[in-house]
Amino acid sequence: MNFELIKAAERRLQGQAHRTPMLNSPFLDRIAGRRVLVKAECLQRTGSFKFRGGWSAVSALPQELRSRGVIAFSSGNHAQGVALAAKLHATPAVIVMPKDAPKLKIDNTRAFGAEVVLYDRAGGESRDAVGATLAEERGLTLIRPFDEPQVIAGQGTVGLEIADQAEEFGVRNADVLVCCGGGGLTSGIALALEAMAPGLRTRPVEPQGFDDVARSLASGRIERNETMTGSVCDAILTESPGEVTFPILRRLCGPGIVVSDDECLRAMAAAFSRLKIVIEPGGAAALAAALYHPNIIEGDTVVVVATGGNVEASQFAEALTAQEKAE
Amino acid sequence: MNFELIKAAERRLQGQAHRTPMLNSPFLDRIAGRRVLVKAECLQRTGSFKFRGGWSAVSALPQELRSRGVIAFSSGNHAQGVALAAKLHATPAVIVMPKDAPKLKIDNTRAFGAEVVLYDRAGGESRDAVGATLAEERGLTLIRPFDEPQVIAGQGTVGLEIADQAEEFGVRNADVLVCCGGGGLTSGIALALEAMAPGLRTRPVEPQGFDDVARSLASGRIERNETMTGSVCDAILTESPGEVTFPILRRLCGPGIVVSDDECLRAMAAAFSRLKIVIEPGGAAALAAALYHPNIIEGDTVVVVATGGNVEASQFAEALTAQEKAE
Repeated sequence: MNFELIKAAERRLQGQAHRTPMLNSPFLDRIAGRRVLVKAECLQRTGSFKFRGGWSAVSALPQELRSRGVIAFSSGNHAQGVALAAKLHATPAVIVMPKDAPKLKIDNTRAFGAEVVLYDRAGGESRDAVGATLAEERGLTLIRPFDEPQVIAGQGTVGLEIADQAEEFGVRNADVLVCCGGGGLTSGIALALEAMAPGLRTRPVEPQGFDDVARSLASGRIERNETMTGSVCDAILTESPGEVTFPILRRLCGPGIVVSDDECLRAMAAAFSRLKIVIEPGGAAALAAALYHPNIIEGDTVVVVATGGNVEASQFAEALTAQEKAE
Repeated sequence: MNFELIKAAERRLQGQAHRTPMLNSPFLDRIAGRRVLVKAECLQRTGSFKFRGGWSAVSALPQELRSRGVIAFSSGNHAQGVALAAKLHATPAVIVMPKDAPKLKIDNTRAFGAEVVLYDRAGGESRDAVGATLAEERGLTLIRPFDEPQVIAGQGTVGLEIADQAEEFGVRNADVLVCCGGGGLTSGIALALEAMAPGLRTRPVEPQGFDDVARSLASGRIERNETMTGSVCDAILTESPGEVTFPILRRLCGPGIVVSDDECLRAMAAAFSRLKIVIEPGGAAALAAALYHPNIIEGDTVVVVATGGNVEASQFAEALTAQEKAE
């Protein structure tokens, strides 16, 4: 994994991914005590940065493999990113999801043209076994959600844009806070910034109780979460950083930051009222860190990646209403 | 009022207003039966396009007048646009608002640095009298919300960007739907498109019962609404088109389109789930027309201006919840 792969992904993504805007608001600056620049990846195609990695991986396949198709395990943003990327390449896509995934996510993934295969997680079916059989039978290529160089390369294009946009704002030194699951986006951004804007330091942000990356950075080896449920930040709950991502995170990233679920919901409400964007709980973690943990951030400006906006209407409405009552 | 004023406003707005993105979603295309491109002015500074007109007007004042200050009558987006534009020019700003305006709007306008003067609308105080006295005493310049060439010029820069962005999408012929109150934005866009993209036709969109512009276009003379309350689309309720705006609208715009309040609320929910942006009811009128009145629109592509996103959390949450129940 290296910077050249990111530059190559950038060329393949040209005209496909949106260059998302860098937003800001004096109201957020006041809360944070410094300037807050928000990279709005919720405005990316499919509603999250995952389209970049999906496109990068599908477009990097040799034609022969691409024509057979791809497979991914995901009930979330990675599923939609891979599904749309495959559809636009006229590549068959199979997405393996648990039977009890939200109907909206299943419907959206199908609407992006993918074949959704459901497995019975409660009934003891193994996702990997279901997927392996399908991949074998049809010659499908597995696209991993984060521990895959071409996926990291696609996500890293967010970092190239941040480097450009920070310069437009005159920012040369700042912490760049990234909502972090397995570290695909975080490591991609870190590699891009190392090359293009070395004064910008990448820092992963995770929900309380699921801070495997922060702990891994502290201990110097891969640490795991004990459970995978129990936070509203579903988009960034992963067991541990990956074997490809962790060495990059370890070499390049500043200390991890941990935020509470409640802080993420409050950050969603702040983004609603001050930036007019929709972010999901896991996509709000970095903004929550900027707004509510200012003392562990350095510099006059902080850059925040708002990674996605795929949230159910009822959950979003609840976050707004809770915040209004609290004020 | 002419195109040169818009080009001059564009130069003054350089580096001040955001170039807002043109968003789209295959899901919206499917509902509308054609491609829908959404110009997201809710992402503009102060949460609506009004910052453009405010900046244009303040920056066009001779230094002597500018240093004395400006005054505006508004409880809404124009107030915030003028307040921030004045603040950034270090110009005093007085905003005259009814005493019963929502507290959030009063607070926001103050937060942008303006002095808010409240008048008692129920007690029979005249807004104009209050304002005239203040303007006289302090030598303030009145900035009208729409019937003012420098304001129209600022709003017209939205049209310059639409012309550019439509070309990037390969669109040469399309209806451009604009949420319309007094016609400042609509006439500015129409003038910009006449010069820069004559295949794009501007069409005003208004709420049912407040279709003064549509009726004026049909009759050929200025028609008035009988009342000024009774729609959720508060941002675009005005008595009639203006004396500056109407001749431009009449010369350049296609027939007006009328949408219901319910359609606007549904369009807000669609923009939430498919574009990840927050739009207010009046800012959703044009999108509502594109989605729910496809038969009276021409062409394979329609451009929609989402004019603003300043909506209370409770109202937004209600719109989402109502839509979810209806599905």
